[in-house]
Amino acid sequence: MQAVWLENNALSLRDDIPAPEPGRGEALVKARLAGICGTDLALIQGYHSFSGIPGHEFVGEIVRASDRPERVGERVVGEINIACGQCAFCLANMPRHCKQRTALGVLNRNGAFAEYVCLPLENLICVPASVSDDAAVFVEPLAAALEIREQVFFESSDLVLVIGTGRLGQLIARTLVSTGCNLQVVARYENQQDLLDTSDIPWIGENIIRERHYDIVVEASGSVDGFALARRAVRPRGTIVLKSTYKEHLQVNFSSIVVDEITLVGSRCGSFDPAIKLLENGRLDPTLLIEQRYALKDSRVALIHASQPGALKVLLQVARAKSE
Amino acid sequence: MQAVWLENNALSLRDDIPAPEPGRGEALVKARLAGICGTDLALIQGYHSFSGIPGHEFVGEIVRASDRPERVGERVVGEINIACGQCAFCLANMPRHCKQRTALGVLNRNGAFAEYVCLPLENLICVPASVSDDAAVFVEPLAAALEIREQVFFESSDLVLVIGTGRLGQLIARTLVSTGCNLQVVARYENQQDLLDTSDIPWIGENIIRERHYDIVVEASGSVDGFALARRAVRPRGTIVLKSTYKEHLQVNFSSIVVDEITLVGSRCGSFDPAIKLLENGRLDPTLLIEQRYALKDSRVALIHASQPGALKVLLQVARAKSE
Repeated sequence: MQAVWLENNALSLRDDIPAPEPGRGEALVKARLAGICGTDLALIQGYHSFSGIPGHEFVGEIVRASDRPERVGERVVGEINIACGQCAFCLANMPRHCKQRTALGVLNRNGAFAEYVCLPLENLICVPASVSDDAAVFVEPLAAALEIREQVFFESSDLVLVIGTGRLGQLIARTLVSTGCNLQVVARYENQQDLLDTSDIPWIGENIIRERHYDIVVEASGSVDGFALARRAVRPRGTIVLKSTYKEHLQVNFSSIVVDEITLVGSRCGSFDPAIKLLENGRLDPTLLIEQRYALKDSRVALIHASQPGALKVLLQVARAKSE
Repeated sequence: MQAVWLENNALSLRDDIPAPEPGRGEALVKARLAGICGTDLALIQGYHSFSGIPGHEFVGEIVRASDRPERVGERVVGEINIACGQCAFCLANMPRHCKQRTALGVLNRNGAFAEYVCLPLENLICVPASVSDDAAVFVEPLAAALEIREQVFFESSDLVLVIGTGRLGQLIARTLVSTGCNLQVVARYENQQDLLDTSDIPWIGENIIRERHYDIVVEASGSVDGFALARRAVRPRGTIVLKSTYKEHLQVNFSSIVVDEITLVGSRCGSFDPAIKLLENGRLDPTLLIEQRYALKDSRVALIHASQPGALKVLLQVARAKSE
């Protein structure tokens, strides 16, 4: 099959990759659409060692499922963490923190920038008919955005700042505005500002951020500067949600975090169900973020496009839907 | 009056310091007993620039209070943060985070290693007759220990690790054991281990800490190694309470904090009322921690004693109680 291949931080498009062979309890999915995420770009830049097919945001169709043949034909998205099911974390209903886990296209498991992808049946979640492929491909990052609300309670009186309005930051801003909180978003690029305007989400420039002012700051820029801005902006006893991974270790003045009694909350993946519900009831339209789509064969150009400053969502159109 | 004086990181005992002159709404307190805390030692080592009289743990007697003469004779302890009363944080009932605040013996205000100390009347809290001077001098650090329970909820099923069993760590362990949580305490020094044994608090050596195991870890060692141990010991989605200031900035892998969805909570001073109640009802006896007491004139030796590895509480006996 055709697939993007990453090895020693070098990317190639290959046609000689064998389609994955689903094991017991697994299914083979024919990918239709895949999204490029900041983590993919970080992996390519060597955030951690990964060899194989990257990509973890996708929508596709089950084409083989020996253990559940009735699911063949289902249009699905996939929870990216594959857990052992037996360790203390799995038994405590935290499979996303299983130490033995693999993660689709991120950790010891081939991902979705390919014609076919393989996942356990329990990871594959049916997409309701009313949710388009273009919306469904956002389920994974939207779930990650919603995870913040699972971890931190937002009161309607809270002053909230989101730093970073790229792919993930835009989704976060859209999930938070519905809490009724007093939201401001730091937007650096004109296209990102325009997109926020379209959705009536107030944005500001980073130079006029008030210091020690915000009850909750969500740091979604993944940059050292973004973290420093978050630290300045949060009020004493406030909360910083860390929603990005960082290429390097950060030098942090922890004494000031103690003195100001700041809470830092690391936040990663989320549950798919609430994300799908949000798309189904039409309260959030992520397709506004789509900047361009490329065929799988043009994935190298697509990845370069996605890595441009200010770029929003770039998609890989792997296969056409049946009906098309 | 006689007082300890810190200037350019050099300590001296002076007899020529004028007694403080209480301003409007303030009272003059004759100190009886003062405690030496890790922050005092850090200040002397240059944690931040401070010139003047150090010391912020004390019990004493009001000897002058022009605005409330009826309070003269009261035995009191003192809330160490002196707030402006008018800023957003003061109005939001967070005077301990007032940006204009001074702090007794820590920040722009002379402290308690002296014969007399001056504080606003509202900072001076009456000590019930049943609480001895020896216990009352612990109100400030005990309040700081109890602050953790104001910020983090401890379930009885939680596995909790306290790192650092010096002055503050011992108090923290004693306040947490009463939550019924499954508590373990990392104790390095034999005298600290013995003291925990006396109170039936289970301690362990740092080499047998299970990794990714504890729901909540309280880091009270103030050392880089202590933080690293806390990070290893906490489970994914767990909480690290930062209860110490650090001399240097820490190099932290924030990506791993995001991936493991760790929460870090900075924790500083607490309310005096619950600490006084705990001493009044006799459920916690901090006087077990007293290692030695010195006269004010011997404060230099006392501070050297307090800075020895494993040292517990060293007190300065500033004046005798009336009845003695």
